[in-house]
Amino acid sequence: MAKKSDFLKTQIEHFDITKHNTVEMIEAMSKMSFSARDLARASDIFDRMVSDKDCSIVLCLAGSLLSAGLKRVVYDLVRHNMVDAIVSTGANIVDQDFFEALGFKHYQGTKWVDDHEMRDCRIDRIYDTFISEDDLAVSDATVSRIAGTLKPRPYSSREFIEEMGKHLVKKCKVNDSIILECFKKKVPIFVPAFSDCSAGFGFLHHQWHNPDEHVSIDSAKDFRELTHLCMRAKETGILMIGGGVPKNFAQDAAVGPEMIGRDCRMHKYAIQITVADERDGALSGSTLREACSWGKVDTVYEQMVFSEATMSFPLLAAYAYHKKNWKKRKGFRWSEMLNDPKVKEPKALI
Amino acid sequence: MAKKSDFLKTQIEHFDITKHNTVEMIEAMSKMSFSARDLARASDIFDRMVSDKDCSIVLCLAGSLLSAGLKRVVYDLVRHNMVDAIVSTGANIVDQDFFEALGFKHYQGTKWVDDHEMRDCRIDRIYDTFISEDDLAVSDATVSRIAGTLKPRPYSSREFIEEMGKHLVKKCKVNDSIILECFKKKVPIFVPAFSDCSAGFGFLHHQWHNPDEHVSIDSAKDFRELTHLCMRAKETGILMIGGGVPKNFAQDAAVGPEMIGRDCRMHKYAIQITVADERDGALSGSTLREACSWGKVDTVYEQMVFSEATMSFPLLAAYAYHKKNWKKRKGFRWSEMLNDPKVKEPKALI
Amino acid sequence: MAKKSDFLKTQIEHFDITKHNTVEMIEAMSKMSFSARDLARASDIFDRMVSDKDCSIVLCLAGSLLSAGLKRVVYDLVRHNMVDAIVSTGANIVDQDFFEALGFKHYQGTKWVDDHEMRDCRIDRIYDTFISEDDLAVSDATVSRIAGTLKPRPYSSREFIEEMGKHLVKKCKVNDSIILECFKKKVPIFVPAFSDCSAGFGFLHHQWHNPDEHVSIDSAKDFRELTHLCMRAKETGILMIGGGVPKNFAQDAAVGPEMIGRDCRMHKYAIQITVADERDGALSGSTLREACSWGKVDTVYEQMVFSEATMSFPLLAAYAYHKKNWKKRKGFRWSEMLNDPKVKEPKALI
Amino acid sequence: MAKKSDFLKTQIEHFDITKHNTVEMIEAMSKMSFSARDLARASDIFDRMVSDKDCSIVLCLAGSLLSAGLKRVVYDLVRHNMVDAIVSTGANIVDQDFFEALGFKHYQGTKWVDDHEMRDCRIDRIYDTFISEDDLAVSDATVSRIAGTLKPRPYSSREFIEEMGKHLVKKCKVNDSIILECFKKKVPIFVPAFSDCSAGFGFLHHQWHNPDEHVSIDSAKDFRELTHLCMRAKETGILMIGGGVPKNFAQDAAVGPEMIGRDCRMHKYAIQITVADERDGALSGSTLREACSWGKVDTVYEQMVFSEATMSFPLLAAYAYHKKNWKKRKGFRWSEMLNDPKVKEPKALI
Repeated sequence: MAKKSDFLKTQIEHFDITKHNTVEMIEAMSKMSFSARDLARASDIFDRMVSDKDCSIVLCLAGSLLSAGLKRVVYDLVRHNMVDAIVSTGANIVDQDFFEALGFKHYQGTKWVDDHEMRDCRIDRIYDTFISEDDLAVSDATVSRIAGTLKPRPYSSREFIEEMGKHLVKKCKVNDSIILECFKKKVPIFVPAFSDCSAGFGFLHHQWHNPDEHVSIDSAKDFRELTHLCMRAKETGILMIGGGVPKNFAQDAAVGPEMIGRDCRMHKYAIQITVADERDGALSGSTLREACSWGKVDTVYEQMVFSEATMSFPLLAAYAYHKKNWKKRKGFRWSEMLNDPKVKEPKALI
Repeated sequence: MAKKSDFLKTQIEHFDITKHNTVEMIEAMSKMSFSARDLARASDIFDRMVSDKDCSIVLCLAGSLLSAGLKRVVYDLVRHNMVDAIVSTGANIVDQDFFEALGFKHYQGTKWVDDHEMRDCRIDRIYDTFISEDDLAVSDATVSRIAGTLKPRPYSSREFIEEMGKHLVKKCKVNDSIILECFKKKVPIFVPAFSDCSAGFGFLHHQWHNPDEHVSIDSAKDFRELTHLCMRAKETGILMIGGGVPKNFAQDAAVGPEMIGRDCRMHKYAIQITVADERDGALSGSTLREACSWGKVDTVYEQMVFSEATMSFPLLAAYAYHKKNWKKRKGFRWSEMLNDPKVKEPKALI
Repeated sequence: MAKKSDFLKTQIEHFDITKHNTVEMIEAMSKMSFSARDLARASDIFDRMVSDKDCSIVLCLAGSLLSAGLKRVVYDLVRHNMVDAIVSTGANIVDQDFFEALGFKHYQGTKWVDDHEMRDCRIDRIYDTFISEDDLAVSDATVSRIAGTLKPRPYSSREFIEEMGKHLVKKCKVNDSIILECFKKKVPIFVPAFSDCSAGFGFLHHQWHNPDEHVSIDSAKDFRELTHLCMRAKETGILMIGGGVPKNFAQDAAVGPEMIGRDCRMHKYAIQITVADERDGALSGSTLREACSWGKVDTVYEQMVFSEATMSFPLLAAYAYHKKNWKKRKGFRWSEMLNDPKVKEPKALI
Repeated sequence: MAKKSDFLKTQIEHFDITKHNTVEMIEAMSKMSFSARDLARASDIFDRMVSDKDCSIVLCLAGSLLSAGLKRVVYDLVRHNMVDAIVSTGANIVDQDFFEALGFKHYQGTKWVDDHEMRDCRIDRIYDTFISEDDLAVSDATVSRIAGTLKPRPYSSREFIEEMGKHLVKKCKVNDSIILECFKKKVPIFVPAFSDCSAGFGFLHHQWHNPDEHVSIDSAKDFRELTHLCMRAKETGILMIGGGVPKNFAQDAAVGPEMIGRDCRMHKYAIQITVADERDGALSGSTLREACSWGKVDTVYEQMVFSEATMSFPLLAAYAYHKKNWKKRKGFRWSEMLNDPKVKEPKALI
């Protein structure tokens, strides 16, 4: 019978955009049609975001992206000041980035397996990728331990993830952790559905053991913080990989100010890479033009790219990296603003 | 120039499963191939869930379902004891069900419009459906008002939605509100990403005005409650319309007990209706067999149906309704258990 | 080891639209959104085609439809004068309809099999459907035998399929053969890629044995005949199930007259049921509005339905059947015109 | 009002694989997951085909590929002996390659247009690409003229396309025509549904004017020729871009010999790039494992890549080009064999 070690042999290695200059290739694609041209236009828009000194860039992550070899792409974007805030599903941030920061790995697998056999080996499958369930349990438990060290009160996911970053300052076993790099560069990470991942298991453990006084995760605070950030930014652009809650949440933040009688400003730039179809009416595949009807996204610089992300996101990110316009750019260090008790939220007018 | 009223003319009307007996049609489909046979098998599995007295049925809702005319389908399932808990995106529960309960409507629209013109008319577009943005603002504000009446503390979304149900006891203007029916029948509704919808705007307003003492939404508590529910249930089955956070969240609850050293029990039945593709590796389209590797779903009674929901969910629900096995079934009234201070969570063993 | 007979147990049974009245259900769907409303609108357009006495209805079939239980749907449409011409892939007409007419069956299978094992058992798999390869070989050989009885010359696929119909007058073992019913009702069937199926194997055998004098299949003649038909018809409507060659071919026929300097008339009605995506730029998923730029399809009565066909085509066809407007309708018997040596093609003006 | 020239401004330019070395990028992708890894594996398999001196490579083309900027990719593969036969839809070969060879162009467009306006301007739209309908009419007419110069008899599409190549020897206005390069290198091009494109219009004109004696297109002969080719080849590999008739036809050729009692040999290598979904049961999205049940494709070296082709085909082709294994390879010049009256088809044994 197959053993666990038979399945966990070849580690996933992350794509390194600094080593692959795609500028000429993307320029050649700009003269084609269909997705190639769409990708080229999206790459150009992303480069415009990076070149626009007033623009804060919000990166949205949905889907199992980081386990698929895209972690270092995001890490490099953060390190080179090309991302000012992240909105993500929990799986990417906790089960995948934090998990690897603790020293665990993702492995090349295949979908042609018997999932009962996987179950017996305690291997979890993500399409064609394998991980050890026992490794993941360590990640869960670490979240619980971090929660146990904090003062019991409601936290935004952003605040809690900063605590995870603090934890990694000493404990990180890799050199490409997104959480740690964001912590250092004061790039806030929001996970609006934070219990929907390994963190949820950690909090379950924490709260079960501390039924009366415990850390809680206030997703309303997340929305308040991101709205506040969007109000302070002069311009905003969103680069969305996948759809789901991150897409919705980041778009909503553009219209949040209306609730308190303040002026709204649409996201000036918007890109989405997705294979979701608009025809089921769900948000994940809804066009960015539809978002315009909601006042969320302007349509001058918007582009959707019909592609699974592993193939296109590295090309787009490498394009912007090798165009070097990030060199003129500083980070906005939004976490500092959000953590600063002296910075008050603008007064509500209604 | 077009006026708002030009676009808001024909109201969406909800499909009524009690009027359409699909039993023979589904049985005919069971002898075909492809999606028709898959739908027939899923319908049979749902009927088995309903017939299994030990099984608590968790309905997951993602995508703009209720605005599309599926509200009454869910309402009828709840009313006839065919649903014991709901896990949903916020849009379905707040922007759509609560919104209509306040007396507002969704309208038949089209995707062939200029979204800038929509914006000017303050009409929000959901693919081919229109709503008035001003109506939606009333919904947002009502959430804020409800929050203002509550004792400041962290709430699970489930607890807060019960307060919305309480509000509707007096204020509901329709006879098919899911929130109100669930409130009456003690069917808990979980929205793990609760700030990701109209409710988020309400909380934004509430917290902005009450920066120090306010209601917060603890998504970790949601996960704790659903895990607790799954532990108390003898068997569980999940009927998933769409994927996203609800799919992940409801599946995770099956393995939550492991975190506290308790035995887990896979969901005995699992159905998903979705057009999401498994090939992008994201959870929404991942097969239920993949979920088996994670210990979440058993594979004896699992069925995915490749279909946009408006076409297939009514047929499946009508099948189970007209098979009448729900008549032998009582509700589990799980909200009562969750609200009862005497019912303690089972002791954590690790 | 598994034997062939283990896999070929449960026969596919065809959906019978005469037994399922979907009129009220479709009317209820017309008040919803997304695909349900699209299906309802498509059903209404199809009923308009049937009610329009001037309209010749061209049914296009691509995808493994008839093996999936849709054969009788098509048969009933032909029998009740709701189809005046068929354009199809070869698989549907030869491998599936002709195959069943010879007494063979399709079987319920599953995609969860080892295809090497299937190969060893000489079972061919169509997603979740099984057939016996030996049965299919008889179908191939019968085509060769029919070819051997004909005068060697180029035939349109339409002419050859009539010969298959003639063969079935005596040999047909079922009561729902499309080829036979079309033969009786003089409904022409065009298969523009006729060698791309079981017929291709038959012709391979025929021509290999008769290298000098043999039947050949002239696809150009097919196009000429269909263009001629469209010119003679007062109005045309196309009901497309799937895309591919049939969609392209039937649309092209609307602009064919331009080549000989004659006026063209766009298809007045057009419906397509497909899950193909427009974003890959291929014809199968291209919108009917795009077809308007080519002068092929008018946009007043056009509707695409995003659905796998087994679930939606029976509902649409049953709607039109039970609306009974076909009762006022006679067939156009276009094969008679095409076979009549006295009917000349209109003179070419350029 | 918009004029035609407003829409036809920026020409599509074709991707040049010789200028973009993707070897390191593809190698980096081989260590990731999902489509990136699939693309890397497919690229490796294609390089194996090229390195295998016994292997004849059949390239299948479906979808509007050449108009989208992929023409030069195919041209370069032919020129460097990496393709031994092509099976294609007619649009690619006639409406796009032949069309450009006559000096006409494709233009960058957009899908955000009014197709009625396009119609009025006589511009045909292919998703986001525009062409002049009048230019296309010249292409149609040229096919008719070529037909008029030939001896009236049935031709395989392959034979007729060679005549188009002969025409281009003198008339070609570009340096990257696939038809011309294939003519020079004796690479056969098969278009099994040859009337389903601009050629169909040309034949319509030709036959209409010559009702009694004319060129006809025998698709059965195409199948016979490709089967013959596959029997003469020691090994075969198929590189499929898109699905449709070319996929089916090229796969069928592997089992064609069975019809005449000869041994069959599965395609040793098989790659497909497509976004088609397997769940509708149609052939375009059917897995290559399903093809194994039919005896068409071996499963050792098979890989599907879930991607729209403009983004992935250039990367795959550039990988194999820059690996340089084609340098050791000569062309098989299969057209010479097919044209040689001395080469007889192997004797039929049944």
